[in-house]
Amino acid sequence: MDKIQVTIMPENLQVEVEKGSTLLEAAQAAGISVKSSCGGQGTCGRCAVKILEGNVTGGEGNLSRAKREEGLILACTATVDNGPVTVEIPEASRLHEHQVLLDDDEEGLIRESQLDEEGTDDAPMVKKFQLTLAEPNMTENASDFSRLSTELKGNLDVEEITISYEALKTLPNKVREQDWKVTVTCLLKDDSAEVIRVEAGHVDTPPYGIALDIGTTTVVVALVDLASGKIVAQSGTFNRQATMGDDVISRIVYTEEEKDGLEKIQKVVIDCINELLDEVYEKQNIAAEDVSVMMVAANTTMIHLFLGIEPMYIRREPYIPGAAQYPVVKAKDLGINIIPDGEITSFPAVASYVGGDIVSGAMLTGIEKQEEIWLFIDIGTNGEMVLGNNEWLMCCACSAGPSFEGGGITFGMRAMDGAIEKINIDKDNDYRVSYATVGNASPVGICGSGLIDCLSKLRKAGVIDRQGKMQKVDTWRMREGDDGPEFVLASASESGIDQDIIISEADIQNLIRAKGAVYAGIRVMLNKMQLPIEVISKILIGGGFGNYLNLNDSIRIGLLPDMPAECYEFIGNSSLKGAYKALLSRNAFKHCIELGKSLTYLELSDGNEFYDEYVQAMFLPHTDMSLFPSVED
Amino acid sequence: MDKIQVTIMPENLQVEVEKGSTLLEAAQAAGISVKSSCGGQGTCGRCAVKILEGNVTGGEGNLSRAKREEGLILACTATVDNGPVTVEIPEASRLHEHQVLLDDDEEGLIRESQLDEEGTDDAPMVKKFQLTLAEPNMTENASDFSRLSTELKGNLDVEEITISYEALKTLPNKVREQDWKVTVTCLLKDDSAEVIRVEAGHVDTPPYGIALDIGTTTVVVALVDLASGKIVAQSGTFNRQATMGDDVISRIVYTEEEKDGLEKIQKVVIDCINELLDEVYEKQNIAAEDVSVMMVAANTTMIHLFLGIEPMYIRREPYIPGAAQYPVVKAKDLGINIIPDGEITSFPAVASYVGGDIVSGAMLTGIEKQEEIWLFIDIGTNGEMVLGNNEWLMCCACSAGPSFEGGGITFGMRAMDGAIEKINIDKDNDYRVSYATVGNASPVGICGSGLIDCLSKLRKAGVIDRQGKMQKVDTWRMREGDDGPEFVLASASESGIDQDIIISEADIQNLIRAKGAVYAGIRVMLNKMQLPIEVISKILIGGGFGNYLNLNDSIRIGLLPDMPAECYEFIGNSSLKGAYKALLSRNAFKHCIELGKSLTYLELSDGNEFYDEYVQAMFLPHTDMSLFPSVED
Repeated sequence: MDKIQVTIMPENLQVEVEKGSTLLEAAQAAGISVKSSCGGQGTCGRCAVKILEGNVTGGEGNLSRAKREEGLILACTATVDNGPVTVEIPEASRLHEHQVLLDDDEEGLIRESQLDEEGTDDAPMVKKFQLTLAEPNMTENASDFSRLSTELKGNLDVEEITISYEALKTLPNKVREQDWKVTVTCLLKDDSAEVIRVEAGHVDTPPYGIALDIGTTTVVVALVDLASGKIVAQSGTFNRQATMGDDVISRIVYTEEEKDGLEKIQKVVIDCINELLDEVYEKQNIAAEDVSVMMVAANTTMIHLFLGIEPMYIRREPYIPGAAQYPVVKAKDLGINIIPDGEITSFPAVASYVGGDIVSGAMLTGIEKQEEIWLFIDIGTNGEMVLGNNEWLMCCACSAGPSFEGGGITFGMRAMDGAIEKINIDKDNDYRVSYATVGNASPVGICGSGLIDCLSKLRKAGVIDRQGKMQKVDTWRMREGDDGPEFVLASASESGIDQDIIISEADIQNLIRAKGAVYAGIRVMLNKMQLPIEVISKILIGGGFGNYLNLNDSIRIGLLPDMPAECYEFIGNSSLKGAYKALLSRNAFKHCIELGKSLTYLELSDGNEFYDEYVQAMFLPHTDMSLFPSVED
Repeated sequence: MDKIQVTIMPENLQVEVEKGSTLLEAAQAAGISVKSSCGGQGTCGRCAVKILEGNVTGGEGNLSRAKREEGLILACTATVDNGPVTVEIPEASRLHEHQVLLDDDEEGLIRESQLDEEGTDDAPMVKKFQLTLAEPNMTENASDFSRLSTELKGNLDVEEITISYEALKTLPNKVREQDWKVTVTCLLKDDSAEVIRVEAGHVDTPPYGIALDIGTTTVVVALVDLASGKIVAQSGTFNRQATMGDDVISRIVYTEEEKDGLEKIQKVVIDCINELLDEVYEKQNIAAEDVSVMMVAANTTMIHLFLGIEPMYIRREPYIPGAAQYPVVKAKDLGINIIPDGEITSFPAVASYVGGDIVSGAMLTGIEKQEEIWLFIDIGTNGEMVLGNNEWLMCCACSAGPSFEGGGITFGMRAMDGAIEKINIDKDNDYRVSYATVGNASPVGICGSGLIDCLSKLRKAGVIDRQGKMQKVDTWRMREGDDGPEFVLASASESGIDQDIIISEADIQNLIRAKGAVYAGIRVMLNKMQLPIEVISKILIGGGFGNYLNLNDSIRIGLLPDMPAECYEFIGNSSLKGAYKALLSRNAFKHCIELGKSLTYLELSDGNEFYDEYVQAMFLPHTDMSLFPSVED
C-alpha cells in the first residue's frame, strides 16, 4: 500500500498514512484530537481544516459559505491520494482537555445517611491481610495454599477460600521469601474469598480500587484507598471516542460503518482509561498491581463499547441492549491496567437509554428508601430521570439532544477554557452583554450553563419572545445572519477566535427543544401515576454539568420544575460517586442489582403522551404558565 | 548472537542454533525427541550421538567405554561453538511413540455400581439447550441476555444465569441471525449456570468434554460426548517432557537449572496436549469451540508443571506442594485449545507424592463406600496406594524408582515396539529364552511387565537366588559383563539393535528394590492400623502398566500380596477413567474434593518403619515366606 506524508501545522508534525486515508485519520494518527461530532459523516462541520500545500480529494460537507471562502474544507471527507499534503488544523477544530467534574471534598462525597444504613457486616470489595504461616515439617506437611487458607480463615468468615491461577504460580516462593510472612490481597464474595495477590513479608500498602465513570463526553477515575475509604487521587479527561462521534448514536453508527469499528472504538476508551490510571498511580506513587478492582458506571452504550458488546440494536426500534447486567471481567481480558486478575464490575442498566450511570446515581441518592416522592435527574446529552419512593420507582430518558453539551449550537462547546458560562444582558444599556468564561480566557464559544443563562437573559431582556422568536430590538447586536436572525454575544475584537460569537434563532429553537424534552419527561412520569408536580418533595440534580447549572435560570426557561431552592440538591457526578460507594460496600452494589430490576422503564417514544407534553413545553417557560407561578411573563 | 548450523542425520535435517547450545537442544529445535532420562545432567547416558563432521566442545558424561570407542558422545553435554556440525542420532537414543493405555470398551469404562449410586439430580459439567426466544417489541423491551436468561430458567433449575464476556460480545447478532432461535452451551455450577457459547439456530452438535491424564510417562486424552456419555475418540502419546528428565525429580531439577525452565517445561506439555486434541477433533470431525470443559488427573508434580506452579519444594524435605487443590483455569489463560472460555478443572491432590491421579482413581474404585477393606494400587514410577473402607482411608507413595518403566535397567525401556513383554526360560534346554515383544518386532529392550516376568522366570529357573544374586549356571547366556554377571536374553543376531540384550545382576537388584518398596508400603499402612494382610478383601490395580502385569509373576517376586486371583481386579487407566466419570457427574467431582481431604497421608520417609519393612522385602519373594504361602521356594 502506498504511503503518503501529511504535515500538520502549526506543529509541523509529519505522519505517514495509507493512500486514500482521510485528513481526520491522519490527524488521529498524529495524536491530534479533531472535533468530529458526527463521527466523520461530513454533517457536523466541526473538523474544518485548511490545505496549505498539496492536493486532496473531496472535503465537501456541511460548512458555511464564509468558511469555504476562507479556504476551509472538512477533514473527514478529504482524502490524500496525490502526494504529500500540508494541512493546518485551526484551534477551533481541535478537541481540548475538558473541564471534568471532579469533587474536591472526597470525604463529603457520600451522603452520611446512607452509609449508616448499611449493616455492620458490610465490607469493601477487597481486603488485605498480613499473615504469618505455620512452617511445615514432615508431619505438618499440608500444601502452601492449604496453610495460607487455614490462616486466612482465622481472619475472614467465609466458607471457601480460592486462589487465582496467577497468584498460585509464585505462592511457594512468596511464602518462603520472608520466613513465612506474607501479605495477601483478597477479593471478597458472598461466601468465599479469592486470593489474587501474595506479597512476601508484611506490607503496609492498603488495597486500592478504582471508581470509573465513562460518560459520553468525559471519562473520570477516582483512586480509592479501600482501607481508609478515602479517594486519594482523581483524574479526568474528555472521552476520546468523541473523534468518532459526539453522541451515542453516531458512535454506534461508527461501529457499523467502520471496518473493525467496535474493536477500534473499544480500544480508544480503554487507552483513555489506562492513561488516567497512569496519572492517578503517579500521583499516589503506586503500581498497577496495587489496584485490585474497578467499579464502572456508564450509560448503556458506553458500557457496550467498553466491553465490546455489539451495540447496533440499541439505536434501532425497539431499542434492545445486548445485556442490562454485565459479567465481571478480569482486567487482563480487557487490557485494563490494574492487577491482571483484578475484577472489573459494571453497574447494571435498566434499558438502552437508562444505564448503569443512572442506577449508580439513584443508589447514591437513596431515593428507594424515602417515604416522600423524590426526583433524580441526570442532565447530559439525554436527560435521564428517576421518580418515586420506597413503594414505586419509575425512570425514563428523554432525548434532550446534545444542545446542553454544545452540540447543534453555532458556537456551542463543552465547558473548556474560553467557554462562556455566565451571561448578563443590560437591556437599558444598548443590550450590553457581560459574561464570565471558563478559565477567564477570551471567549471562544458557549457551554451548557452559559446557554441556559443566555436563553433566560435573552427572554428577560425581551430579545426573544415566549416561543423563542427573535424580536426586532434596536441594537447593533441584532442582525440577519446566514441562517436567519442572530444576536452577537461577543464581537470578533473581544473574542479569542477572530469572529463574532453569536447565538441564532435556530440555536434558540434547539435549546427550547432540549429543555422541553426534559420537562415533558417529568410530566409523563407524573401523569402515569396521576400525580401533580407539587407532590415531588426533593429534586436531586446529578451529571456532568448539573453542578454548574443556575437554578433560577433553569426554572425561568422551564427546564426544571418551579419549586423553591430548598427542594433542590446538586449532587455532582452521582455516577462516579455511586461507583465509589460500591467499592466500599458490597451491600451497596448488591442493592444496585435489585434497584436495576425494580426500576420500571417508561419508553417515551411509545405512544403520543410524550409528544403532547413536549409540544406544551415548547414555550418559555411553558404553555401552561400556572406550572411556573414564580416566573413573571 | 552467532548462529551455528547443525545437520542431523540420517534425516539430513538442518537447524540453526545459538552458539553454545547443546546438541540436545539442537535436536529439540529440529523437533527430534532424544532420550534424556536425567534431564540433561550427563548422568543417564541415554542421549548418545555421533559427530560425523565438525567439532563440538564437551560431550563427556556417563557413557560405557564400548560406546565411547564407537565414537559416541553425550548430546546433552556437547556444545556447538566452532562452526557447523553434522551429527548422527542413533535409533537407540530416540524417543518413539509410546504404547499408551487406551481402553477399547469405553462403555465398560465405568463400573456400573458407582453410576447407579449417584442421585438422579446429578448432571454432567456442561449442557446445551436449543431455545426460541421471545421477540422484543416496544413494551417487551428487556435486553437480549435477559430474554435468553428467562428462557433458560425454564429449562434449568438454577438461581442465577450468567454469561461469559466472550459469549456476550456477539449475543445480539447470534439471537437475530436465525429468527430468535439459538443453541446455548452452559457450564453448570452449584446454584448457577454460565453461558459460554451461543450458536445461531438450533444446532444438534452435543456438548463435548475432554478427560486428560497427564502421566510422567504418557499423556492420554479422551473426547467425551457429554449428552450420550460416550467416549467418542481417544489419543495418547509419551509425555514430551521426557526429554527434560524421565522422572518427576529430574523434571523439577530442570525447572531450577534451566533459564525459564518452568515456562519451557509447561509449554512442552501444553503443546503435547494440544496435538492430542487436534487428533481427537479430527477423528470426530469437530472444532475446538465444541469442547467446553477439560478434567485433568495427574500427579502433583505434573499438575504443578501443567499449571506453571513453582514445583521446587516438592522435592525438598518436608516435600510441600504449592497447592493440593487447584483453581479452575480458563482455557485461554493456559493456551489449551478448547473454547477460550472453557474451564479446566484439576483433581485435588493429597500430598506431594499422592496426586490427583490417585484421587481420581480412588473415586473410580468406590473404595470409600465399602464395608470391607480394599487396597487400590497405581504402579508407575512411584507405587501409590490407598487402603481403607467407608470408615477410614489411608494413602502413601513408595519410591519404587523408574525400574518398572525401564529406568535404571541396562536394556530397560517403555512398552514401545520391540519391547520384550513376556519371557519364558527353559532350564532343561540350555536355558533357552522365548519371548513376546510389543508389536511382534525384533527385540530392542525389556519393558516393565517383561522385567517382572524375567525376574520371576530367572528365579524359577534357578538363575538367581532369593537375594537376586546370579548363580553359576552352565550356559553361554551367563557371562561376566562390564558391570558384573549378566544373562543374555536375546543375542545380537536376533535383536533389532545389533547388540546382545542382557539383564545384569545390578539390574536385578534395582528391580528387587522397586518391588520391595511397593510391598513394604502396603505393610506399613496395615501396621498403622494393626491389621494383617489377609484383612484385604480386594486389590484394585490401576496405572499405566498395571494392565499388562502378569499376576502370578508379580506375586512370585513379592511385588503383590499372595492372594487368590479372584481378589484382584485390573482397572486400567484409573486416573483417566476417573476424569471421564467426573465429566459426566458433577457429584463425582465434588466427592473427590471430600475424598482428597479425608485421605490420611502417610509419609513413608518419616521414621524407620518403612525402612525395616523394605529390608525384609529385599528377598524373592520376602524374608518372611509365611506371607507367600503359595510361592514354593
